Amino acid sequence: MEFSSKLLENAVNEMSQLPGIGKRTALRLVLHLLKQSENQTVTLAESLRKMREEVNFCSNCHNISDTKLCEICANPNRNEALVCVVEDIRDVMAIENTSQYKGHYHVLGGKISPMDGVGPGELTIQSLIDKVKNGRVEELIFALSSTMEGDTTNFYIFKQIESFNIKTTTIARGISVGDELEYADEVTLGRSIVHRIPFETSLKN
Amino acid sequence: MEFSSKLLENAVNEMSQLPGIGKRTALRLVLHLLKQSENQTVTLAESLRKMREEVNFCSNCHNISDTKLCEICANPNRNEALVCVVEDIRDVMAIENTSQYKGHYHVLGGKISPMDGVGPGELTIQSLIDKVKNGRVEELIFALSSTMEGDTTNFYIFKQIESFNIKTTTIARGISVGDELEYADEVTLGRSIVHRIPFETSLKN
Repeated sequence: MEFSSKLLENAVNEMSQLPGIGKRTALRLVLHLLKQSENQTVTLAESLRKMREEVNFCSNCHNISDTKLCEICANPNRNEALVCVVEDIRDVMAIENTSQYKGHYHVLGGKISPMDGVGPGELTIQSLIDKVKNGRVEELIFALSSTMEGDTTNFYIFKQIESFNIKTTTIARGISVGDELEYADEVTLGRSIVHRIPFETSLKN
Repeated sequence: MEFSSKLLENAVNEMSQLPGIGKRTALRLVLHLLKQSENQTVTLAESLRKMREEVNFCSNCHNISDTKLCEICANPNRNEALVCVVEDIRDVMAIENTSQYKGHYHVLGGKISPMDGVGPGELTIQSLIDKVKNGRVEELIFALSSTMEGDTTNFYIFKQIESFNIKTTTIARGISVGDELEYADEVTLGRSIVHRIPFETSLKN
């Protein structure tokens, strides 16, 4: 792509570094900005820069937060003995949306993935183990996605905390509510039969 | 979507103003930036702001350019009597890529579209008419996309310059090189038969 302007070229090149955005899409986005008021671009640029420079992570759960302790960790009505281990803030938002969980979170910041150069040291695993060591945790809920990386991460953490004798659970895998059995994949359907629950329990929610 | 951080929320909201980028995609992009070095975000923000604030349009053809006169208009080897009317810089880039055109361009900045609130006054049509009036143009090539808005814009310009007796042409519509006839739409195929060209002419390129 040959550009008639260096300024335009720089902007397009920077935009196309974002995941899923190629050169053509980047050009479309940048030309859109040129058609809008100057103010919109300045606000966008400023909000990105400010977010990146001033971002803060909760000292307890490592979730993105504007305060030292995030709202969830600072809330006295939430059970700090119950800790749900998730990959990133999107998982926290998804679980919070259900309004079904009143415990704390622990945001790992990723999954162990040697192929991508992510080892246990890159994640907040040590801080989780320290939390368990301090005896403040009664139950750890693994809520990582069930991929090879997720399972590896779960197992790595489990091995590290096994000796502390706390309860460890994992979120239930099964057929989605409203789904037809015939379209479910075999692994999920198989698990949902093996891990069946008492009918009375299912009525409660 | 409920965010644990106002900074994050602002960045996501600003990103999701871009066309084709929803809240979820915006969040994914912003979280990606958080995983990269601070420098990358600062460079992105800076290049967008700088581009928007310092952008300059060629005083002759209205294409985006870093200099007062763009490279094409400043090139003495290009024929200024031949002017190709296009919608925006992407069309200039597409035609330049063919290496088949040695004339000038005139970038309208859009098409007449009353539904979107774009009238002739929002485009650079007056400047094009002035150019024709000054007698510097011998041929005007209409290269707008053949939509209702494109056709309207072509016709509007044509009516304004009709009296100056210059040659006006439009780029050829027809079957793409390499395409099979049976898959072509009827309108295009119909046009390509009506506007057939001498076989000898087709051999030249």
